[in-house]
Parts: sequence; structure tokens; C-alpha cells
Amino acid sequence: MLELPFLPFCLLLGGLGFVCVALVSAWCQYWRGGFALDGSTQTFNWHPVLMVTGMVVLYGAAALVYRLPPTWSGPKLPWKLLHGALALAAFILAVLGLAAVFCFHNHQGTPNMYSLHSWLGLATVLLFSCQWLAGFSTFLLPWAPAWLRGLYKPIHVFFGSIILLLSVASCVSGINEKLFFSLKNGTMQYKNLPPEAIFANTLGLLLLLFGVLVVAALARPGWKRPDTDSPDSYQ
Amino acid sequence: MLELPFLPFCLLLGGLGFVCVALVSAWCQYWRGGFALDGSTQTFNWHPVLMVTGMVVLYGAAALVYRLPPTWSGPKLPWKLLHGALALAAFILAVLGLAAVFCFHNHQGTPNMYSLHSWLGLATVLLFSCQWLAGFSTFLLPWAPAWLRGLYKPIHVFFGSIILLLSVASCVSGINEKLFFSLKNGTMQYKNLPPEAIFANTLGLLLLLFGVLVVAALARPGWKRPDTDSPDSYQ
Repeated sequence: MLELPFLPFCLLLGGLGFVCVALVSAWCQYWRGGFALDGSTQTFNWHPVLMVTGMVVLYGAAALVYRLPPTWSGPKLPWKLLHGALALAAFILAVLGLAAVFCFHNHQGTPNMYSLHSWLGLATVLLFSCQWLAGFSTFLLPWAPAWLRGLYKPIHVFFGSIILLLSVASCVSGINEKLFFSLKNGTMQYKNLPPEAIFANTLGLLLLLFGVLVVAALARPGWKRPDTDSPDSYQ
Repeated sequence: MLELPFLPFCLLLGGLGFVCVALVSAWCQYWRGGFALDGSTQTFNWHPVLMVTGMVVLYGAAALVYRLPPTWSGPKLPWKLLHGALALAAFILAVLGLAAVFCFHNHQGTPNMYSLHSWLGLATVLLFSCQWLAGFSTFLLPWAPAWLRGLYKPIHVFFGSIILLLSVASCVSGINEKLFFSLKNGTMQYKNLPPEAIFANTLGLLLLLFGVLVVAALARPGWKRPDTDSPDSYQ
């Protein structure tokens, strides 16, 4: 494959992740009335910001920890703790993001969990919680047997990429759904493609680009930790 | 990883793909009024059926051709032709599926290409057309140099999985969008989760499962053609 240095790529990816969080925050602040905790639509606005920040950007950062060259030598435990802590932070933001939408729905008398977006989104967060718990039990608890770690590792790595892509798919269906809900009056209809629609559609495509670039970085053979099966990896 | 025989897995996957095509057809026939070619909503109904059949199920079949053990020995050209032909059939169905929705929009005076679903869907089909053309030019034309094949192959394989997952994400956002459009009257509102909503949401999750299983089969090391870099692979 083409030669590409990891660190500049990582900086680019960090910049893209920052842009995604900035855009989703700007969308909710500028077009959707900002943020509150009173069960109004301003409470809902925490949902996209927290899901994008947690389930896409922080999750992507957690996934890439083992691609940093400093993790390839020396003790693995600090990097495991960083990987697990970033993933836990992503999970906490996701749970808060779910709480925001449930609080909004309950306050407005809207049923929960009816749209395909909600089914997919909740399934993704549940899968992520299983992934985190299984990863914690297998790789961090010192008494997990080596054969179990060896068996589970490729599954953990595979689902790491899949959960990120499911998160991005959830975000795309959620942005699409939110724009149909919000843009339905006069010249501000979604189908007339007002500035808000172009802005949020662009956000959706940037999230997809972020997800694909993270998965590409994870899949790239030259960026993988070379000594994955050394005894140290069972620390 | 767990031992799992490829052929039973493939049969299961074929069954799941068949169920997805049957469900999307049944949805459009039973709840959405069937099919026509007159620019009405019945014309639109070709869109989900053709996209699911082409961009998900046939595409998945094309992607898995090189995982069939008979492709691992003997001349590679017939399998290349099968892979390319299945992908071309998927592409033709996708173009017809796009034609159906453009025809419906133009007939109804609805603008085209405004929703995030449409942006993502068209981007996916355009990416697929680039993938097909680059694959044809590099792997089927006999004068493509071996170094170019070696350089492009991992990129082709990576985007093969990514395009399938983007297709599934497009389908999920499209099903979500269609249900918000169609289910908005009285007790048949989407938020009341009528039988049609449960049916189509389930279809969305099954499409996701199909996409994830195909990508898992592609990623599984034991199911890859062992002699990928033999001279024969440049046939």
C-alpha cells in the first residue's frame, strides 16, 4: 500500500473529529435553540452532541490507542488502562446522550424506541457495553487465562470496527430523522435544502469519513503492533 | 477463533439475504400498494427492492466469491469473471433503483437529492462505480502491471467491505425516512409502532446483520484464499 506516516494521519483524524464535535454543537446551538436540562427540545439537543462526541470521536480515539508507536514497546498495562478509560468515557457520554432523549420524550409524552434509528442506536450502545465488559473481563483482569485472551482478541478487534460503523450509521439515520422533524415549514422545508440542511448533511458525511478513516487505520497492516503475541501482551 | 465451516455459514447467509429481499418486497407489496412504472408511489416502491437486492444481497454474494474453497485452486479467470459479473449485476440494479426514485420525484414535482439519505446513497453508488471500474481495469484487463495489482488489491478489498456497510447504512436511513413519510395518520403513526413499523424496522436490523456477517466472513483469516500472491493470481 502507499506509504503514509501514522502521526500526521492521526493529527488529521483528530482535527476531523474536533470539526465533527464543533459542527454538531454549532448545529444545536445556532439552529436548534441551544441546550437546557428541563425536558424541552433544548434537552434533546444534548443527544446528538453527546452521541457524536462519545460514540464516534472518543470511541475512535480509544480504538486507535494501540496504533500509537509508543505502545509497541515497554509495559502494555498503562495503554490498556488508557484504552479502557477512553472507551468507558465514550460509554458514559453515550448513556448521558440516551438519558437526554428519554428525558425529552417522557417530558413531551412522545413514545420511546419506535424508530429504526432508535432500535439501531440502542442496539449499538448495548453491543458496546458487552464489548467493554468482555474486554475488561478478558484483558484487564489478571486472572483471565491466556487461551481465552487469544480466542477473544480477534473478535474484540473485529467488533471494535463494527461498533464504530454502527455508531456512524446511527448518527446518519438520526441526523436525517431530526432534519425531517425540524424542517417542515414554508421555505425552511428539508426538501428545499436550506442552509441548516446543507450544514447537517455535511456533518453526516464528515462523520462517515471519520468512521471510515479510523477503520482504515485499524485495518492497515503496517500500523499494527508487531509483537501482538509476545508474552508481554498477556500482562 | 471458533471453528466454523464456511459452506453452512454461506447457506445461512444466502437464506438471510433471501429473507431480506422477500421482506422488502412484501413491505412494498402489502403495505405500500405494490409496483408500477407510471411515476406514482408504486414506482417509488421499486427503489427499496432494487437497492436491497442489488447493493446489499447481490453485492454480498459478489464479495464472497473468493471465499469459496473451489476458487482456491485452478485458473482464477472464471472466478474473476463471476465476481465482476455479480458486481455489475448489483450495479445495474442500483442504477435502476436510482432511476425509480428520480422518476417518482420528477413526476411528483419533489426535489431530488436533498436528504442525507440521498447524499449517502448516491455517494455509495458513485464509490461502487469507481470500485468496479478500477477493479475491471486493474484485475481483468490483461495488460495491467503486476505492481499495480499488488498495490491496488488491499485498497479494493478494504473498500469492498466499506461500500457494503455504507450501502446498509443508506438502507437503514432510507427505511427510517420512508416510515416517517408513510406513517403519519391517526393510529398508523410511526410513533405508535404499528405492525408495518415493526416489520420494516426488523428488515433494517436484518440488513445490518447481513452486512456485518458478510464483512465478518471476508475478515476471517481462515477463510481467505491461501495463495493470494501466487503468480496465478495475476492471471
